Amino acid sequence: LPYNQGALITESNIKSEVGAIIVAAGVGTRMGGVEKIRSPLGGQPVLSRVVAVFVGCAAVNRIVIVLAESNIGWGKALVAESGWSKVTSVCPGGARRQDSVAAGLKELDGCDWVIVHDGARPLLREKLISDGLAAAQETGAAAAAVPVNDTIKLAGDDRVVEETLPRERLWVVQTPQLFRHDVITAAYREVAADVTDDAALVEQWGGRVKLYPGAYDNIKVTTQFDLALAGVLLESYEE
Amino acid sequence: LPYNQGALITESNIKSEVGAIIVAAGVGTRMGGVEKIRSPLGGQPVLSRVVAVFVGCAAVNRIVIVLAESNIGWGKALVAESGWSKVTSVCPGGARRQDSVAAGLKELDGCDWVIVHDGARPLLREKLISDGLAAAQETGAAAAAVPVNDTIKLAGDDRVVEETLPRERLWVVQTPQLFRHDVITAAYREVAADVTDDAALVEQWGGRVKLYPGAYDNIKVTTQFDLALAGVLLESYEE
Repeated sequence: LPYNQGALITESNIKSEVGAIIVAAGVGTRMGGVEKIRSPLGGQPVLSRVVAVFVGCAAVNRIVIVLAESNIGWGKALVAESGWSKVTSVCPGGARRQDSVAAGLKELDGCDWVIVHDGARPLLREKLISDGLAAAQETGAAAAAVPVNDTIKLAGDDRVVEETLPRERLWVVQTPQLFRHDVITAAYREVAADVTDDAALVEQWGGRVKLYPGAYDNIKVTTQFDLALAGVLLESYEE
Repeated sequence: LPYNQGALITESNIKSEVGAIIVAAGVGTRMGGVEKIRSPLGGQPVLSRVVAVFVGCAAVNRIVIVLAESNIGWGKALVAESGWSKVTSVCPGGARRQDSVAAGLKELDGCDWVIVHDGARPLLREKLISDGLAAAQETGAAAAAVPVNDTIKLAGDDRVVEETLPRERLWVVQTPQLFRHDVITAAYREVAADVTDDAALVEQWGGRVKLYPGAYDNIKVTTQFDLALAGVLLESYEE
């Protein structure tokens, strides 16, 4: 090859393989037994909205959906009906959220990057995915986050305040969370702690996680009220 | 007096004088210049809903409303129209929230207890006031709070995560906040730090602040979206 043609094939020019894990294996106890991911939101199930955004994102090559055992049949039918060819697996989750992510991770061997997103955050926009991939380049790990607006205090079991935390340094962390494949697989292999998000495993493993701007409307639908709120937000976009 | 009659006059039997400060002196920059406390919510201004709850609470004897200079005339007319005889002062606030509370505090000499409440939290119920007064008996200071549901991380200026905070020990603090008069006046006199709530001044002064259960719907109306949300919540109560 002539020199200038060869130079085109650099690390940054080779297309990365990006896999996404949509985690939706929770049992939805706070919705009174209603499956939040199956609940209709603006005419389609919450989960459909989420998957459609990832399907529509050019940077994403493969999608794994992790569901509760009882929802696997429903999920597979949804994928078939919707013609989502990027979805390569609909697999059962585990007891904890992190067990479900681990199950999804097994389906993404060979990927360079892994994106984890909550199946119950239906209002994300595609930009949040591409911004996240850009943010993750620096340290190999990034998470969407918004500044905390409330006063947050730390208290003991007696509920007497020990400390008012420094608000200007606090962030509410969301998903997407985006990781180099080797980083998240090492963190999952080597750290056993109970965590509330994937970034925490990477932090405990010793990785550096970069926060990037999330969105206040990227809410997690946990209760019936959240679902109503998501509906109001959705309508406000369409006005 | 016979011994048993005299014994009736104990500290706990003497009726405490309870004063409330409704802080509403913010300029509402996040509402695009709209005065959030004057905005209609279910047919009446946000501030009216707040004051009415305190007026209706038997434990509260005196109410001070602290407003921006430009709202004083409007506030005084509202008090007169509404026939709120418990409101003993409508006074101008200061540059910071804590300067406004300090201005209100000057109007409550002779009170045994002081309650501070945000004028922009219109959905509080009377029970939150009485629960708070009960909670404050132990340490002389109490604040309404709800458990944090989100993952909160602490990050530096570079937005790289330093720590995922222990969620089970974190609380989102609201108002009402309730203080023994001597405790809050000493804290305001002796502590000069910038704070986001009154409890933080008491903490820095060395006082102990007890958290008690607030309410998730006791939201602070800061943006137009919050106002719409408060409307949805209000309607849901009436269904």
